[in-house]
Amino acid sequence: MVCAPSKTVIRGEPPLPTDSVNAFYKAMPIRRRVFVLGDRETRSAFKSDLRGRDIVSAKDLSRDELELVFEVADDVLANSSAYSAVLRGRRVALLFVEPSTRTFSSFYIAARRLGGDVLPLNEPEMTSLTKGETLYDTLKMLEGYGVDCIVMRHPSRGAARFAADVVSAPVINAGSGSQEHPTQAILDVYTILKKRGEVDGISLGMLGDLRFSRTVPSLAYLVSNFDDVELHFIAPSALQVRQEVELYLNDRNVKYTKVTRQQDIPDAISRLDVLYVTRLQKERFPDPSEYERLKGSYRVDMDMLRYAKTSLGVMHPLPRVDELDAEIDRTPHAWYFDQASYGLPTRMAIFALVVGEAR
Amino acid sequence: MVCAPSKTVIRGEPPLPTDSVNAFYKAMPIRRRVFVLGDRETRSAFKSDLRGRDIVSAKDLSRDELELVFEVADDVLANSSAYSAVLRGRRVALLFVEPSTRTFSSFYIAARRLGGDVLPLNEPEMTSLTKGETLYDTLKMLEGYGVDCIVMRHPSRGAARFAADVVSAPVINAGSGSQEHPTQAILDVYTILKKRGEVDGISLGMLGDLRFSRTVPSLAYLVSNFDDVELHFIAPSALQVRQEVELYLNDRNVKYTKVTRQQDIPDAISRLDVLYVTRLQKERFPDPSEYERLKGSYRVDMDMLRYAKTSLGVMHPLPRVDELDAEIDRTPHAWYFDQASYGLPTRMAIFALVVGEAR
Amino acid sequence: MVCAPSKTVIRGEPPLPTDSVNAFYKAMPIRRRVFVLGDRETRSAFKSDLRGRDIVSAKDLSRDELELVFEVADDVLANSSAYSAVLRGRRVALLFVEPSTRTFSSFYIAARRLGGDVLPLNEPEMTSLTKGETLYDTLKMLEGYGVDCIVMRHPSRGAARFAADVVSAPVINAGSGSQEHPTQAILDVYTILKKRGEVDGISLGMLGDLRFSRTVPSLAYLVSNFDDVELHFIAPSALQVRQEVELYLNDRNVKYTKVTRQQDIPDAISRLDVLYVTRLQKERFPDPSEYERLKGSYRVDMDMLRYAKTSLGVMHPLPRVDELDAEIDRTPHAWYFDQASYGLPTRMAIFALVVGEAR
Repeated sequence: MVCAPSKTVIRGEPPLPTDSVNAFYKAMPIRRRVFVLGDRETRSAFKSDLRGRDIVSAKDLSRDELELVFEVADDVLANSSAYSAVLRGRRVALLFVEPSTRTFSSFYIAARRLGGDVLPLNEPEMTSLTKGETLYDTLKMLEGYGVDCIVMRHPSRGAARFAADVVSAPVINAGSGSQEHPTQAILDVYTILKKRGEVDGISLGMLGDLRFSRTVPSLAYLVSNFDDVELHFIAPSALQVRQEVELYLNDRNVKYTKVTRQQDIPDAISRLDVLYVTRLQKERFPDPSEYERLKGSYRVDMDMLRYAKTSLGVMHPLPRVDELDAEIDRTPHAWYFDQASYGLPTRMAIFALVVGEAR
Repeated sequence: MVCAPSKTVIRGEPPLPTDSVNAFYKAMPIRRRVFVLGDRETRSAFKSDLRGRDIVSAKDLSRDELELVFEVADDVLANSSAYSAVLRGRRVALLFVEPSTRTFSSFYIAARRLGGDVLPLNEPEMTSLTKGETLYDTLKMLEGYGVDCIVMRHPSRGAARFAADVVSAPVINAGSGSQEHPTQAILDVYTILKKRGEVDGISLGMLGDLRFSRTVPSLAYLVSNFDDVELHFIAPSALQVRQEVELYLNDRNVKYTKVTRQQDIPDAISRLDVLYVTRLQKERFPDPSEYERLKGSYRVDMDMLRYAKTSLGVMHPLPRVDELDAEIDRTPHAWYFDQASYGLPTRMAIFALVVGEAR
Repeated sequence: MVCAPSKTVIRGEPPLPTDSVNAFYKAMPIRRRVFVLGDRETRSAFKSDLRGRDIVSAKDLSRDELELVFEVADDVLANSSAYSAVLRGRRVALLFVEPSTRTFSSFYIAARRLGGDVLPLNEPEMTSLTKGETLYDTLKMLEGYGVDCIVMRHPSRGAARFAADVVSAPVINAGSGSQEHPTQAILDVYTILKKRGEVDGISLGMLGDLRFSRTVPSLAYLVSNFDDVELHFIAPSALQVRQEVELYLNDRNVKYTKVTRQQDIPDAISRLDVLYVTRLQKERFPDPSEYERLKGSYRVDMDMLRYAKTSLGVMHPLPRVDELDAEIDRTPHAWYFDQASYGLPTRMAIFALVVGEAR
């Protein structure tokens, strides 16, 4: 499927040059994405099969598919040794145009644990080459070298979709601008499932910089697959969730509220089953004094959690700076270390389903 | 063989400090380069044997040796599974003092596909340490660690030759300043062979910035091994091919022409079997308005190819920026994606011949 | 054991923020460090067993432990093939927040030669995140991914100790600020042993910038395990050995002298069995003219060695710039290339003892 990259442009985030992108689409031979894996698998049409699939947007994943990933992640945790050869002979390129220790490590170890071979491409200097042309040529080159999967992080919106359209090997989006980060959202939902038992009926708050977060949209899209979900977006107006997210939630009839006034935060916190924290960054505020005025209200500490349910789970994609107090680490509210540890089994599950040898 | 590094200095390119280089030569113990590979191979004298050889300059390769590489590359493409253990137990260091996604990836995957172990050293920060002394110590250290082959890219002329003289393990030049890039030229000639059937009798044009290109000299040197070759260097005077290349071609009686006037380009294009495109870079022109005036004439698009033979092949080392129009991608003129894909089998062949286990 | 990081702060070297470090200590669950290796080993109490041990400071190593490392290093050199599976199934993270080609390569190859898997994390950009909080989260994440050992280089004092306290997997300090570099010191002492036959009774000089060196303190601590050692610290007052080193040596009754006047250098040199050279760096001098005045006296060349014993060994952690003349390379005084080559067997021995499969 060929989708034009979204045209929404976020401040400070370079869009891919759409004209040249379109020129490439026209120039590209149309390819069938047919995958022969192991000695018998082909890409089948049955809805939960992720074999050969690109993981570009959380929007593309159905509840069935998500539950398949979780089932495999459970199995990875229970029987990890059974997975040591699932990627044997497979080559995974990690093309990180924007650095990320955490996400890079997680994918690297996931692929190695499955017996796959990793081509580590940490290419921050390619940022100056975010032109579609160069990215296109780099991707075609990786394809020419026979890589079986490309995991890509890129500072531009639309970069992952572009890559998925350019190469026939499956592309896994490891973060595309502030647009999406679907595998982070998969591990986040898996964490909710493991810690809370179910996702249905959840009251989920997201707090901090929701406008520039790549995780928040992906998480909102994923949980919209579940029943009776209620979302609370807690952020100052300037950093509220983007319109594209609201449109999607409206479309799928997901209930959500936007909490923009400091004085409404305690009441919002009191309603939540899970609080997802992201950081306010000073540089996002046009007026620095505005940041100074607001930051205290968006710092999560024991004082703020006075209003919370005893069972409230606090999540954070880590590493934090100061938006989440270390005091909370010792309380049962702290879900974030478990959350971090679920990155490995979920990414192993994704690799196994998308590029793994049929077992 | 110990050769003094060439003294030709290109603007913006740091030469190795020759005095200290000479001091090292004097200081170095003379070593026999003896290789025991597998359990029976030693470095033999027969002319096509590349075992243990440094690949520093395209000038060092004879036609026989080149054809041996191509023969093995053909075999790699036909029987790739037979090569999966050719570098087993071998350690290849990739010392990239200047970053290059494409060349780095190609060597990395080539070594891994042969079962070798890769030490990835992306060391752009070493650029500030281009002093001969530091490079010497780094190379001796790699030798001390028992690496079996060093693939090196370095921003200085002479760096690869220097390395080859310093360590006893074979050194493969992955680009040394604007001097040479022999493995790129090997894959380029292989592409010509595969697409055209033979190299003899070719009329080969090279267009763009020929003065600062590292690929153009290596390609010119390699094709001079073949019969009835005619080269056309198409570039403005300021960016014409360097004198050292002309001297070499004269020496070997290779026919070549220099096309420096814009109005002569169409006629030159019409004579070519293959057109090799490199990019004009604005920063190479002392006068920016000169660049603006010329750039249109050196941009390869369908309009320029009106004058070309139907069978003309267009080559480019990729990634391109805007010097090669995406329109051409869909035409049979576009050899450059195949060209990119030949990087892997040719580099696998080079590794197999130079450091591989005897089969 | 939980030790507060030392509070000594060296100019230009960011200390870890102690308050937040303490907050983390309070927040951290206390963990038992229990290691089950292979199918029978547990961490035993007998004094020379290094299994599961952090290698943070040279101070923590006894003579028995050091001799165990040397014994295994000897065995590695004699029977390297017997070690090819000692780290099979083990994952070693190389977290280099500060780049180092040499140390990185040495650990990388050591782990690979033992059959271990390496997660290469070259993260100079993390330097801007030297806050304890971020490092804590990164370390917990690596632990969550199941790495079996973390080798860390970090520009801050105390960083390695902090890491060792945060994660239950063993931490190997590959350089922490200017504080320590214990594995370098281990290979240095091994070199002395191999070249001189014994360490007892040595007269060891250290020359150059002793104040900001991370190697000099570790080496001084290690040799203090041996009998009848005499140390000579040869440096201008501003760059003399740090007080913490003197306190330690006094405590252990190790004889040492400080040579601060240029005119006393020849006499000091004449007494030495081994001279350990480090570089004077111009930027360390508050007054640049002071540097110009002194540098000649601290440059080691054949002229300086006129005063030396015939058997004097010169050591240097390489790469050098100009503090050690290439003339010496050809003389028997030059121990530094052998020294560099001992990095591999000693680091293999350390890995084997600390995280290896029981044999």
